[in-house]
Amino acid sequence: MSGYVRNLAEQARAASSVLAALDGAARQALIDAMAAQLDAQRDAILAANAEDLQRAAAANLSAAMIDRLKLDPARLSAIADALREVALQADPLGAVTRSETRPNGLLIERQRVPLGLIAMIYEARPNVTADAAALCLKAGNAVLLRGGSEARASNAAIAACLHAALRAQGLPEAAVSLIEDPAREHVLELLQLSDLIDLAIPRGGEGLIRFVAEHARVPVIKHYKGVCHLYVDRAADPALALNLLVDGKASRPGVCNALETLLVHRDIAERFLPDALAALAARGVQVRGCERTRALAGEHSAAIAAADDSDYAAEYLDLIIAARVVDDLDEALAHIARFGSDHTEVIATEDAATADAFVRRTRSSAVMVNASSRFNDGGQLGLGAEIGISTTRLHAYGPMGVESLTIERFVVRGEGQVRHAESLTNRE
Amino acid sequence: MSGYVRNLAEQARAASSVLAALDGAARQALIDAMAAQLDAQRDAILAANAEDLQRAAAANLSAAMIDRLKLDPARLSAIADALREVALQADPLGAVTRSETRPNGLLIERQRVPLGLIAMIYEARPNVTADAAALCLKAGNAVLLRGGSEARASNAAIAACLHAALRAQGLPEAAVSLIEDPAREHVLELLQLSDLIDLAIPRGGEGLIRFVAEHARVPVIKHYKGVCHLYVDRAADPALALNLLVDGKASRPGVCNALETLLVHRDIAERFLPDALAALAARGVQVRGCERTRALAGEHSAAIAAADDSDYAAEYLDLIIAARVVDDLDEALAHIARFGSDHTEVIATEDAATADAFVRRTRSSAVMVNASSRFNDGGQLGLGAEIGISTTRLHAYGPMGVESLTIERFVVRGEGQVRHAESLTNRE
Repeated sequence: MSGYVRNLAEQARAASSVLAALDGAARQALIDAMAAQLDAQRDAILAANAEDLQRAAAANLSAAMIDRLKLDPARLSAIADALREVALQADPLGAVTRSETRPNGLLIERQRVPLGLIAMIYEARPNVTADAAALCLKAGNAVLLRGGSEARASNAAIAACLHAALRAQGLPEAAVSLIEDPAREHVLELLQLSDLIDLAIPRGGEGLIRFVAEHARVPVIKHYKGVCHLYVDRAADPALALNLLVDGKASRPGVCNALETLLVHRDIAERFLPDALAALAARGVQVRGCERTRALAGEHSAAIAAADDSDYAAEYLDLIIAARVVDDLDEALAHIARFGSDHTEVIATEDAATADAFVRRTRSSAVMVNASSRFNDGGQLGLGAEIGISTTRLHAYGPMGVESLTIERFVVRGEGQVRHAESLTNRE
Repeated sequence: MSGYVRNLAEQARAASSVLAALDGAARQALIDAMAAQLDAQRDAILAANAEDLQRAAAANLSAAMIDRLKLDPARLSAIADALREVALQADPLGAVTRSETRPNGLLIERQRVPLGLIAMIYEARPNVTADAAALCLKAGNAVLLRGGSEARASNAAIAACLHAALRAQGLPEAAVSLIEDPAREHVLELLQLSDLIDLAIPRGGEGLIRFVAEHARVPVIKHYKGVCHLYVDRAADPALALNLLVDGKASRPGVCNALETLLVHRDIAERFLPDALAALAARGVQVRGCERTRALAGEHSAAIAAADDSDYAAEYLDLIIAARVVDDLDEALAHIARFGSDHTEVIATEDAATADAFVRRTRSSAVMVNASSRFNDGGQLGLGAEIGISTTRLHAYGPMGVESLTIERFVVRGEGQVRHAESLTNRE
């Protein structure tokens, strides 16, 4: 261990106390100033990004990776606007969330405080540098950022803007600390700093996330993948279910809230599946189906591969879906319990009791009744920008907004109350 | 790794689904039945406890350890009564905690669900076996218990009662799984089971807790120690402050919410400290003080050892306290930031602005204004029984009641809403 990251983290931790003491207006002004700096430094950021893109091309990175890396004036404006939206969000700190007066007259309040120092470990997208910093600062935290080496020039240029805004407000630059050296050993060092880092959030591919989870001695909130299911109940409205299927699979297949598996009650399979398979085929979606699915596929049956367990466990992130006919709700739930990833489950049904049973008997972070899986997103669920999605059933479960970067503590107000009044007088 | 613990954990995890599907009345009846079993099996439990006590005496365990281990009819009744209180608590599950209708008509609800499988790793006190199981079950979780080897017969006898109640309700005994084999390697095995265990809670001495934190690949919520401070502000009521000091230090010095350090504003030191030191001396409390404290001690000065940094960092858990005169609130806060353990801080002051500044600028799990540190306790703060105290700034911070064994997830109710309506019609 070089101590390089520990040194950065110590400075960031010291800065976290300064951040925590700021009032909401000061944090809002700071994030607005960061957005203004991003606008003002557009040319410098784009020049840095061009450097990253040139290196990416030379290294033969995939077109998808290069697209994630690429900035242009419109994307940069969108990043600055996203910061302005975070600035405008309600202040998550300080407000009393609950309060109770005890029989002894003590007033017990719950109040949100910052977590402290948050480490973000992420891959190609340089917008995360700005987004994550803004969300952490909005909640009064300092942040330690470790972006992907492929985006290092872009990340440094964005961080320079954030630092300029901190300086202009008389605040320590270390409140946003960037690990610029791309060596992977620095991630390992970071993950050991349990005395300094309150939470690490990895964002990226499953490989990165497993690496972080495997090596972390600091708390980690993560999601590995989204194996999201649509269960079409016997009492489903077939047209409604078809809309959920097409939106869930085909509107943006590369995201974690896209559908990966279709489960169909046997009583509706004959009515629903032929249309569903035709609609999927029309959108170029490959289907991997059980025997009953293939039997109902008609002209499409030849195109449907036989599904096995690995298909049901897969997060395709592509125009591929697994399909299975089930005997009843129990079998659908057993399938989800076995193959699901606690991300998002959807039921299409007009039967309220079945909907309630489905909600009660799934424990995923989001359960949708007659709504698309694609709504499992911080913005869509009313949280504002999200710093990540958690399928860790601790602290936060589902999309994480600014509130999930805080914690409730106890504030007790009394007039001299003590537990053992007798101890005050005895032996005197 | 023997697989012994993995096998137990797999069964417990399977049982957690059964528990999660029970309604609140069934969970309440189950815990009541467990209390009744403890009453009915009193003789068997006391006989098992006698075995543990005999082994403890032979092993020359300390008197304090033997006291923690010992059960008698009154203590057993108290354990059963504690279970009945847990049974009576409000059901933490299912209720909608927040709800919002989005512009697109989606109803977004937040709802508490169980964490899943919770592992408790604890030392001598056999009551934890019953308490922890009841709290976990109340919140719909299964629990995997690993008690101290010195209490193994008592723990097994108590677990037998819990199993009898589970059996009588037709529920899997594995919902309360006890690791009976005392080998320490089983704790190591347990701590690796990140695919099965949602949360591990260690309870016991700092050594046990550091061992768990060091080796865990599962999420851990813990507190190492309680280095709790009383800051006597210049605007304190001296009599009130004296009560807080004596209650905080002398009413029960061996607990984590006892005071360990007294900080006194220099402007009130002359008026407050001589009385305070006399009151502490009268209760047999040893003081380790700064130079200014010793100068004000008068007849007691010879008895006051000079304090160094290790005294300020210590959790004495005994009739010993460190004392320091500070120049102002800033110095008090800097002391707390440097030596504190995020557990409990107290201010005595009649000045509302100073009280607010102290609350705002400390981030400990509980901050008390004119109230004893000893109120940092689940029961005293209105949570009911506590499963532990967290100074981990994640998920729960402070005493953890039954609610902290649950997590909020999202339930979305719609009428067929989709994100990208255009994808439903294009290419058809």
